[in-house]
Amino acid sequence: MKYDRSYNFSAGPAMMPEAVLEEIRDEMLNYRGSGMCVMEMSHRSAVFQTIVDEAEQDLRDLMQIPDNYKVLFIQGGATLQFSMIPMNLMRNGKAVYIESGAWSKKAVAEAKKVGEVTVISSKDRNYSYIPDCSDLDIPEDTDYVYICENETIHGTTWQKLPNTKGHVLVSDQSSMFLSRPCNVSDYGLIYAGVQKNVGPAGMVVVIIREDLIRDDLENLPVYMQYKTHADAASMYNTPNCWAIYCCGKVFKYLKSLGGLEAMDKINREKAQVMYDFLDQSKMFHGTVEKEVRSLMNVPFVTDSKELDAQVVAATKAAGYDNLKGHKSVGGLRASIYNAMPKEGVEALVEFLKKFEAENS
Amino acid sequence: MKYDRSYNFSAGPAMMPEAVLEEIRDEMLNYRGSGMCVMEMSHRSAVFQTIVDEAEQDLRDLMQIPDNYKVLFIQGGATLQFSMIPMNLMRNGKAVYIESGAWSKKAVAEAKKVGEVTVISSKDRNYSYIPDCSDLDIPEDTDYVYICENETIHGTTWQKLPNTKGHVLVSDQSSMFLSRPCNVSDYGLIYAGVQKNVGPAGMVVVIIREDLIRDDLENLPVYMQYKTHADAASMYNTPNCWAIYCCGKVFKYLKSLGGLEAMDKINREKAQVMYDFLDQSKMFHGTVEKEVRSLMNVPFVTDSKELDAQVVAATKAAGYDNLKGHKSVGGLRASIYNAMPKEGVEALVEFLKKFEAENS
Repeated sequence: MKYDRSYNFSAGPAMMPEAVLEEIRDEMLNYRGSGMCVMEMSHRSAVFQTIVDEAEQDLRDLMQIPDNYKVLFIQGGATLQFSMIPMNLMRNGKAVYIESGAWSKKAVAEAKKVGEVTVISSKDRNYSYIPDCSDLDIPEDTDYVYICENETIHGTTWQKLPNTKGHVLVSDQSSMFLSRPCNVSDYGLIYAGVQKNVGPAGMVVVIIREDLIRDDLENLPVYMQYKTHADAASMYNTPNCWAIYCCGKVFKYLKSLGGLEAMDKINREKAQVMYDFLDQSKMFHGTVEKEVRSLMNVPFVTDSKELDAQVVAATKAAGYDNLKGHKSVGGLRASIYNAMPKEGVEALVEFLKKFEAENS
Repeated sequence: MKYDRSYNFSAGPAMMPEAVLEEIRDEMLNYRGSGMCVMEMSHRSAVFQTIVDEAEQDLRDLMQIPDNYKVLFIQGGATLQFSMIPMNLMRNGKAVYIESGAWSKKAVAEAKKVGEVTVISSKDRNYSYIPDCSDLDIPEDTDYVYICENETIHGTTWQKLPNTKGHVLVSDQSSMFLSRPCNVSDYGLIYAGVQKNVGPAGMVVVIIREDLIRDDLENLPVYMQYKTHADAASMYNTPNCWAIYCCGKVFKYLKSLGGLEAMDKINREKAQVMYDFLDQSKMFHGTVEKEVRSLMNVPFVTDSKELDAQVVAATKAAGYDNLKGHKSVGGLRASIYNAMPKEGVEALVEFLKKFEAENS
């Protein structure tokens, strides 16, 4: 490749489009005649305001976000959202959490500090499936139902949203944000750490229905209130300006590719290459139920830990980076987000096929 | 200049060293043969761990941070610290805050949500001085004394730390971090948003004495506990990797210039150019008491708001950017952090002299 770049299968931070990185590089010393780098700009300047306004509008265009939803750029990662969500949305102190993997489990732990949490879990089979949520028994005074829509570590994706029976749905979309069309009106709150499928780490996008933003929480830390960020259009304090700038470029890039419908098609094709290989392989096999397989994170294993480690070392040596699986699942994991080219997946599969042939 | 860059007098985000920006640009598509940009790196990878380890060590070298202090990289800005500090350090629920300007005032508001706060303020003269803290009456069970060591908006700097009579001293050093030598042992906790004197927005450096890190706060949101960040060496969740990378480069750059002693000398020279001009000008004058003038933020005014606005417009047109003063002080403000070259200050002063001559 032009810059001798790796195919990087990291679960996040992860690959970004090369064309975006080139633009960022070229604007480093002087952003469009402003006389400065974006990192040096006052967040109160007109030139930066244009950057943040365009980023928000491009995201609204991509996801067709209705006018009654606010888009917020907040620091602190998903981890801070694990706390902000119950602190802001628990009016009655009750929520239902679907624990389908490591990330929803972490969210449960934080929510329990705030209120009463009913947990529906797939822990019994190491989160290899998603609990049936077509007919949940949800108490009337439940404040919201929480899901992690794509579990990065365990490699599952919700194919059909839970039936919340009219209750607010909250979704962590970190590892599948912008990977496919999304009907925002189905949710009360969507959030995503941008470091997996969009840009650099250090920022979460929160999309929240306006009526869920409360103005009676002034005793909470000011940074922890959605109202603080909503009232100031994400500029109450200095935001992660660099992440807004980089993500804005990715939003424009996705629009140029045809938006989320186009990404969905590309992502299905890419994942198909991986799963077709796994389904016919005698050495490698996937770890989750076929119906809920993630298009973004593909965990797979051999029959031995030694062989797993051997494969990880061999792929790394061949320029396929970060394929080691998370310790809670073991084996390997190929994260194939928006910015991973199809050729990267095809090349990996060719490599694995050859490895299997030579080592069987 | 080589890249037609402005002299940018922004209060933050603010100028970064051109040599650092060039390095970042050159590493954008492939960081030192890693095959990826730093924004794309797994924060759990060896290559990124080296970046974060070096950043911490270089900061320790610069500030000669004793071994019994932890260095933490946390998101959420000073605003989140306004809450984290009282939530973590108030054992007895009592603190003394010296309110010497807009930023300590904001800190007071958050601390009052957590405990009892004694406020010693210089609000009576619009924060143009720093209260005498040589012999404070501090109750024995006070948990800490809080100062903002350089008030960005009001343009004052502490010349001598308050006499805390053995109580823990907490300091917000955001707008003077690394501008002069600092005896870390005088403090229990120092923090700084890095977007003023170091790098890009979206990260705070916290330097905390280990015995102040409590392990009995598990009911706090996990992100809000210093213990979370300390135990995981700032990697409990994905940190602002890009900010760590950029700040690390600035730390190395400052070391190459001779460290904080050298920066202190340069900064005194730069500020002297500004203050010498203001002290002899008939049109412009500084707004704070001479003894507590900041070396970093120099607010000044003319005798009329119309003239102030005219000067701001004229400087901007001439390539001196972001000189408009904060609305609470009015007039103009020149922020002259570490990365502002002396030539920038000299050129501004020449411009102001000419403006005064032509408009008197």
